[in-house]
Amino acid sequence: MSASQPLPSWNDGPVKSAILDFIGRVTKEGGPEFVPPPERVATFDNDGTLCCEQPLQIQFHFAFDRVRTLATKDPAMGERPVFKAVLERDYNTLFGLGKQALTELAFATHAGTTDEEFNEVARGWLADAKHPRFGRLFRECVYRPQVELLAYLRENGFKTYIVSAGGADFMRAFADEAYGVARDQVIGSSVKLRFDAAGDRFSLTKLPELNIYNDREAKPTSIGLHIGRRPLLAFGNSDGDLAMMRYAKSGSGARLALLLHHDDAAREVAYDREFRISPLAEALDKADAYGFTVVSMKRDWNAVF
Amino acid sequence: MSASQPLPSWNDGPVKSAILDFIGRVTKEGGPEFVPPPERVATFDNDGTLCCEQPLQIQFHFAFDRVRTLATKDPAMGERPVFKAVLERDYNTLFGLGKQALTELAFATHAGTTDEEFNEVARGWLADAKHPRFGRLFRECVYRPQVELLAYLRENGFKTYIVSAGGADFMRAFADEAYGVARDQVIGSSVKLRFDAAGDRFSLTKLPELNIYNDREAKPTSIGLHIGRRPLLAFGNSDGDLAMMRYAKSGSGARLALLLHHDDAAREVAYDREFRISPLAEALDKADAYGFTVVSMKRDWNAVF
Repeated sequence: MSASQPLPSWNDGPVKSAILDFIGRVTKEGGPEFVPPPERVATFDNDGTLCCEQPLQIQFHFAFDRVRTLATKDPAMGERPVFKAVLERDYNTLFGLGKQALTELAFATHAGTTDEEFNEVARGWLADAKHPRFGRLFRECVYRPQVELLAYLRENGFKTYIVSAGGADFMRAFADEAYGVARDQVIGSSVKLRFDAAGDRFSLTKLPELNIYNDREAKPTSIGLHIGRRPLLAFGNSDGDLAMMRYAKSGSGARLALLLHHDDAAREVAYDREFRISPLAEALDKADAYGFTVVSMKRDWNAVF
Repeated sequence: MSASQPLPSWNDGPVKSAILDFIGRVTKEGGPEFVPPPERVATFDNDGTLCCEQPLQIQFHFAFDRVRTLATKDPAMGERPVFKAVLERDYNTLFGLGKQALTELAFATHAGTTDEEFNEVARGWLADAKHPRFGRLFRECVYRPQVELLAYLRENGFKTYIVSAGGADFMRAFADEAYGVARDQVIGSSVKLRFDAAGDRFSLTKLPELNIYNDREAKPTSIGLHIGRRPLLAFGNSDGDLAMMRYAKSGSGARLALLLHHDDAAREVAYDREFRISPLAEALDKADAYGFTVVSMKRDWNAVF
């Protein structure tokens, strides 16, 4: 295969053809499905769609390491159930504590720093933290076929966005280098910010107060508020992406909604319904009815990383 | 002056020199103040900074015309004080009713439509609505020197954003054509959205509930949430822009904060402290102390429109 052929890590077959055909139709000047460049919007989930989310989403590894660092300065922290579970690596207990506990974890590892300080902390961690199973840097646990697709979409006049339940500021610390997606094109969960003065220096302090938890129906509403355009293409891997995918797919004209199925235990992990944070069930069962194109990691990708 | 010289509608003098010098320094490869392109962020207020806001901000003209249209279908609407004042063109009473009344006005002219329907309504109005004083289309009541500056910044690798208290969706209906600023680079006030299904079609319905009133301290926090980078350059014209300008100016390295002073009664309007919605007082009085560069419309611009 020549280097100039698009999407070299995608196997030839109906899925790759559907992607190339779709991009060809919306970019064909004078064609019946031509879409002007400003309207070419593509939105991608992050965890499990662009990068590994097993055994834990990358930002949980970051948060846990951050708790360990903070607990050395504040030992009383370890008395709270959520932090105790983290320090003991007892993840079943942790996730059994529910959403409130995960929120507490997020606040503890974000709040009180400025967004700029947080960025430095996250980048410092990402510089050398490695995935426990794959043995590669977390920031390199990204799917090569998806990086190719993002780049190919941009070459074809698309603006590419991440729309994820993950923390926006954490993803922004690596999205440009890993995916070529600029910070302002990363839409995620966030805490509220406070405008603070310290002498002549004004900064934004992250508060222990949720701004948005960017999952499910929040994904399309965030797209409306942030991008102001319905995506032509949306790519997800769980029921958390259903609303975004159906929103994209139900627009007029050519649309493509893609669903990644993790069915490759040999090269990555095989899972769907049972995954604790973002299970894949309805989106898979109803893929045909909803007009989704299911991407099989095993069948459609000739490389993963 | 040759056409290839930058900023032809700006008069030579210290202000134009400060702008060109700043852009030169941050883009000079290998220079001590060089800033890589991804970090080149410029944020502009809209009303009174990029376009006329006198006697009323453009979106008020739109909202009033919209109330007149809606009142023909629902005459009972005219019994409410805020709409009665609009229908009688009694703007002193209207603005005397306070912020709650203006919120009611915004909700009445937005809520219940989808964001896509609202865009069509706004674009339809902008297609032929004219400014009462200047006799030109509202969408052409934009300042030529600013359009040149926005384009020159983009030529120099900057991303240009609007950060305004105005409604994001209203500005998005004309920002690309008027300023070359894409919809996702327009940050403004907004109402909450609801993800709705009508048959197989999913859409975003605008709700009568404020999402954000994007003025004063909300401007820098919106920048943090939406852009995720501190601006290198910020341009405003009122105390509503102070927080954004001080945030930009207090970053490390070369920074520029510009303040437009409307002092040109012959070509536009002369006003500052007394303007009802967005007065200019502290930003003007403290311009030197805060390191702001004051732009005089009369002295620094050789053309306005």
